[in-house]
Amino acid sequence: MINGEGWSKTWTFFEGSWHEGNVPIMGPRTHAAWLCSIVFDGARAFEGVTPDLELHCARVNVSAVKLYLKPMVSTETWVKLAHEGIARFEKGAALYIRPMYWAEKEGPWVQAHDPESTRWCLSIYEAPMRTPKGFSITLSPYRRPTIESMPVDAKAGCLYPNNARSLFEAQARGFDNAVVCDLLGNIAELATSNIFMAKDGVVFTPVANGTFLAGITRQ
Amino acid sequence: MINGEGWSKTWTFFEGSWHEGNVPIMGPRTHAAWLCSIVFDGARAFEGVTPDLELHCARVNVSAVKLYLKPMVSTETWVKLAHEGIARFEKGAALYIRPMYWAEKEGPWVQAHDPESTRWCLSIYEAPMRTPKGFSITLSPYRRPTIESMPVDAKAGCLYPNNARSLFEAQARGFDNAVVCDLLGNIAELATSNIFMAKDGVVFTPVANGTFLAGITRQ
Repeated sequence: MINGEGWSKTWTFFEGSWHEGNVPIMGPRTHAAWLCSIVFDGARAFEGVTPDLELHCARVNVSAVKLYLKPMVSTETWVKLAHEGIARFEKGAALYIRPMYWAEKEGPWVQAHDPESTRWCLSIYEAPMRTPKGFSITLSPYRRPTIESMPVDAKAGCLYPNNARSLFEAQARGFDNAVVCDLLGNIAELATSNIFMAKDGVVFTPVANGTFLAGITRQ
Repeated sequence: MINGEGWSKTWTFFEGSWHEGNVPIMGPRTHAAWLCSIVFDGARAFEGVTPDLELHCARVNVSAVKLYLKPMVSTETWVKLAHEGIARFEKGAALYIRPMYWAEKEGPWVQAHDPESTRWCLSIYEAPMRTPKGFSITLSPYRRPTIESMPVDAKAGCLYPNNARSLFEAQARGFDNAVVCDLLGNIAELATSNIFMAKDGVVFTPVANGTFLAGITRQ
């Protein structure tokens, strides 16, 4: 049932082996499935290269610690598994490589999970690179949260619904994407990525002021 | 595998029938499993009563709309299913009744889901009422996000990791729970619920200023 139809080719390493398709990993009692105790990272493979794969794998472990999850997979193991998984696809395929940690169980207060119940998987799937064509942007009425009010120093799933509503709101007004400011009104990033402006041969990007994750590509 | 051990008795209505245990509902490709496109609500059954069950069921539909999910279950159907589920437990059992909506698929920009792929379930499980004894609280360094920076007008899963880290941080300092302020420094709520103070026979609670969900019990 949950495997569903219409997924691109997907392989996931979970609980000691590789599974094809949208393998079940969470039920309604799983803490992350409703209380969003989940971190991830996203690397890319294309044309036979995997830029910054190690940096992405290292970052998911840092994100885990910020969310009180246990980073039980070493960067080396993530990278090794990623190469194992990539070999299951056509040579040179455009892939998204997503290591994840999440909590299975709740702690004494339901809102906070039990760190000892941390689970993980590495999901790899076909995802074409975005065509480098233009798109329209507008200024979003939504803002980036501050570090005191959300874990903006981690790549945490809980940050994304705010991005999603920025996209939906922009699209309802006929735009493709939106520029999101921080609470002080400084340009922070797009709803979907860091933002850059090239002008007269110089590239500009907002100062990393702690309201968004300064991307690995950006660095 | 994902059913795991140690769950209290659980029944979930998903995809047209009742399932016992932690039935699989999400895989690694499921949008909500990593990008947290999920809303829920929580009602209680105990001693044969279900206070405000209809209000909780109506509120999950409002939360769905705020998160651009499709509220495809009427309040009446939620309530009818809840009573069906409750009948699967011992008479008078203390239960948590949790209706949920989430997104299965991504839209053209991955961060925003496809509203047409909304799924839902109703999960009911044994959960003892909290013993009415005291607990210690401290002031959290974390804050509630604003309405511009998070969907604080919905009961959305994405709001909870900030509560969780407030609990973890307080517990690391030897306290049970934490008072969380809004970004202006006003007392907003506890990390786990709305806050009330009873003094000289008068009950006080912060003004609902849009930085936290004014609970059904509070109202």
